[in-house]
Amino acid sequence: MGRWEPNARDRLLRAALELFVDRGYENVTVAEIAARAGLTKRTFFRHVTDKREVLFGGQEDLLRTFTDAIAAAPDSATPIAAIAAGVEAAGAVFRLDRRELVLQRQAVIASNDDLRERETLKSATLTATIAGALRERGVTEPVAGLAAEFGNLAFRTTFARWVSPGNQREFTELARETVGELRAATAALG
Amino acid sequence: MGRWEPNARDRLLRAALELFVDRGYENVTVAEIAARAGLTKRTFFRHVTDKREVLFGGQEDLLRTFTDAIAAAPDSATPIAAIAAGVEAAGAVFRLDRRELVLQRQAVIASNDDLRERETLKSATLTATIAGALRERGVTEPVAGLAAEFGNLAFRTTFARWVSPGNQREFTELARETVGELRAATAALG
Repeated sequence: MGRWEPNARDRLLRAALELFVDRGYENVTVAEIAARAGLTKRTFFRHVTDKREVLFGGQEDLLRTFTDAIAAAPDSATPIAAIAAGVEAAGAVFRLDRRELVLQRQAVIASNDDLRERETLKSATLTATIAGALRERGVTEPVAGLAAEFGNLAFRTTFARWVSPGNQREFTELARETVGELRAATAALG
Repeated sequence: MGRWEPNARDRLLRAALELFVDRGYENVTVAEIAARAGLTKRTFFRHVTDKREVLFGGQEDLLRTFTDAIAAAPDSATPIAAIAAGVEAAGAVFRLDRRELVLQRQAVIASNDDLRERETLKSATLTATIAGALRERGVTEPVAGLAAEFGNLAFRTTFARWVSPGNQREFTELARETVGELRAATAALG
């Protein structure tokens, strides 16, 4: 399955979320999502493997954004500095003009055990991806593994702040602040 | 469901693992496990909710062991010192005389996607439990969350070393060493 135009994926996501919010995730069929998005069922399946993947299909973009930014950090960057670059880069995915869409997606995921589990599993993939990107930079174990856990926590905390009610601040700005706080927290671990 | 005698759970686990290793997890029924363990199907369901829980039923003991040890650490203990106490205490669950059983369990889990996912989800529960135990000690965020990720990684790394081929060292000893290495790694995060 190749990469496809991000707008097309958002269109599919928007169509699916409208239906999920209206009628509940469990009660919506793939055919209905495809119809709402103006796609045939066949075209739908060319883009996503199943209904669940409409919600999680953006993950590859996020992982690529992370790894590209970590790889592009200067040679002199510490593991935390490289991770900061990765989390800040995720601001390209989580733009304020897409926040409403992301909030709807989170509400749907929270409504279903299976989707919540999927979200947790995807989170573990992010950790593994960050660790791999750091090893590519020559960071050895156990530092790479520990830094990857730091990176995942930094991402999750930034994300939680970005989606929190009333937030109007940019993801990238929150990322910078969060990484700074977590960096200070490492000194308090003992 | 109350706590039940650990030997009885091990007996059930041993019976199930024999069958899973012989015939594959998917092909074994609850009735067969119960029969092999000398239990009625009814008694089986008093102890575990389903076939999968035979493999994961020990999780509550592990979590309790962790939280008890973290709670019992001296007031003066740093977050990492309290976590070290938790990981070392897990040696009561992972004794060398049970290593063969644990290795068989790992092999069965590795053979099945659903079980691997369940293992990942249980791991997220461990992180949340450690964070809760630290907050009970008055550790505030973001230190508690970061320390919990440290603790989960310390546990997973210790466990991986303990089950690695040829290992004959005690879990508690490996835990002490691993926490020390990860503690040193925090200084290299930057």
